[in-house]
Amino acid sequence: MRIGFDLGGTKMLAAVLDDDRRIVARTKNKTTGVDNDGVFAQIQDTIDGVLKKAGISRKDLESVGIAAPGPIDMSSGTILSTPNLGLKDFALSARLGDALGCPVYLENDVNAGLWGEFVSGVARGKRHVIGIFPGTGIGGGIIMNGTLFRGKNGSAGEIGHITVQTDGRRCGCGNHGCLETVASKTAIARDLALLAMNGQSPVLAEAGATDIKLVKSGLIKKALDAGDYGVADVIDHAAYFLGIGMAAMVNTFDPEMIVLGGGLIEKLGSRFTDRAERTMRERSMPRLVADVAVVEAQLGDDAAVVGAADLADREHGGEETAG
Amino acid sequence: MRIGFDLGGTKMLAAVLDDDRRIVARTKNKTTGVDNDGVFAQIQDTIDGVLKKAGISRKDLESVGIAAPGPIDMSSGTILSTPNLGLKDFALSARLGDALGCPVYLENDVNAGLWGEFVSGVARGKRHVIGIFPGTGIGGGIIMNGTLFRGKNGSAGEIGHITVQTDGRRCGCGNHGCLETVASKTAIARDLALLAMNGQSPVLAEAGATDIKLVKSGLIKKALDAGDYGVADVIDHAAYFLGIGMAAMVNTFDPEMIVLGGGLIEKLGSRFTDRAERTMRERSMPRLVADVAVVEAQLGDDAAVVGAADLADREHGGEETAG
Repeated sequence: MRIGFDLGGTKMLAAVLDDDRRIVARTKNKTTGVDNDGVFAQIQDTIDGVLKKAGISRKDLESVGIAAPGPIDMSSGTILSTPNLGLKDFALSARLGDALGCPVYLENDVNAGLWGEFVSGVARGKRHVIGIFPGTGIGGGIIMNGTLFRGKNGSAGEIGHITVQTDGRRCGCGNHGCLETVASKTAIARDLALLAMNGQSPVLAEAGATDIKLVKSGLIKKALDAGDYGVADVIDHAAYFLGIGMAAMVNTFDPEMIVLGGGLIEKLGSRFTDRAERTMRERSMPRLVADVAVVEAQLGDDAAVVGAADLADREHGGEETAG
Repeated sequence: MRIGFDLGGTKMLAAVLDDDRRIVARTKNKTTGVDNDGVFAQIQDTIDGVLKKAGISRKDLESVGIAAPGPIDMSSGTILSTPNLGLKDFALSARLGDALGCPVYLENDVNAGLWGEFVSGVARGKRHVIGIFPGTGIGGGIIMNGTLFRGKNGSAGEIGHITVQTDGRRCGCGNHGCLETVASKTAIARDLALLAMNGQSPVLAEAGATDIKLVKSGLIKKALDAGDYGVADVIDHAAYFLGIGMAAMVNTFDPEMIVLGGGLIEKLGSRFTDRAERTMRERSMPRLVADVAVVEAQLGDDAAVVGAADLADREHGGEETAG
């Protein structure tokens, strides 16, 4: 048996998977630890909890795969820094491996999620897949020739930081006009909060959503469905730029499939992705884009745990590709 | 012995290489054929010419690697269409293989050139390399994990067609604001021709360079060196956008090295590449870009023949990576 673990900023999810990559037990906890030791204790509690649910013990574990927010030093299995979790140089693979007595593999959460879709979800059977996940920022993952591509620092796929507006807004990374400055969920929330302020969206105004933090995906959907003035325009604007970013991916990677995922995509679905896809098709090389499939991720929260568990398995067993 | 062959729109270059990838003989001819049969006859003449120079005959050949302008169907070794050569569904690998009695391998010329730099030039010993070659358009090649990445259609690396100006000029591909609309040699020549017209560059005006076709790389260098008003500005503008494209490559591929090549780069050198590199560094994720080397290609016209010959060797011998 094996565990897949998704260490998120607000929650952590552990799952026990059988040999067919089926989840046989799940445990979810809020992430409350504020430093390495606190988070480590919580991870162990959550793992013990899911082991108990599955009716097994630590000694039954062959491997553990952990999906965590980056940046990660892949060679040592260390989370370098995660401001919102208070983690710093957190040697999770070694520490948890010692505690559990089995190999622990650490992977960037976006890569793990895309890998989950690749081995058990919507991208099964493909060889060249790009994953784009608009959230607080925009996460990206790249699978080529059936292999997760990591680049020299394990960071390939920072799709959120390609320039789509030459002189656009300043991004947290220091650049201007990055894709995530116009198409992340946060960027959409920023524009929608102003609509709430200006009285252009009764639904948002009623929800007090002049506070960007209150502009959740569900509320965006509700305002869209209500036909609120301006909301559709904000969504179309973001989707347009997402499509430009997708076209850059098509032109440089020649992929078979682009997987779009994350909470915002789950809520808005084709209302958001159709517009992005149309722009992508308009702006890609015709010969390359003709047979590119644009699909929504299908595993939701399970993607990262399934992917992390599978990657740990392969690392453990020495495999490198799947298909 | 093996032959590397570069089939270009204006000239074709054949070279005989020994087992250490050293060129022992070269023959260059103007490309004058205007259809499949005409070009095929010229290719055979050029090969026979270089064989004679090397003092060997067709039966001494183990393999031939050909670099050709795309698009190419890799699986059948066919050049699908090349308007300026008049080629259409040209099954070069099969046809030349029959004529020579040895395997003939066909590769996109940009990929072949980058591969040449990778096995024998400036990128030797690297694993993750991006090649960008501003010319009529902007060619791009991607080597990851020591392997040339081709994507599903053999066309990965169309770096010239990533959007760098959201609402920029219309590109030949149908999109707007593609990198090659602002940073190709053709785009630079277009802007410089206007300077010649407006009397803002005496050197260009004297050369009659209101005709874009007359704005050659050597003339651009001369006008720059003369301190002509406006010319430096055009070059900086193009280099700035090239830097934005390079930053997109750094952020999505996490490479070790970016190789810049082609006639324009050869002539202008650091006058062009320094500005591009500075913009790239400003606009990339700091953690990723810190140790990215930006270098000029060093093999010149030999890159594609060396690369094509080496790829043919590997294809023939079944190898797939180098480093």
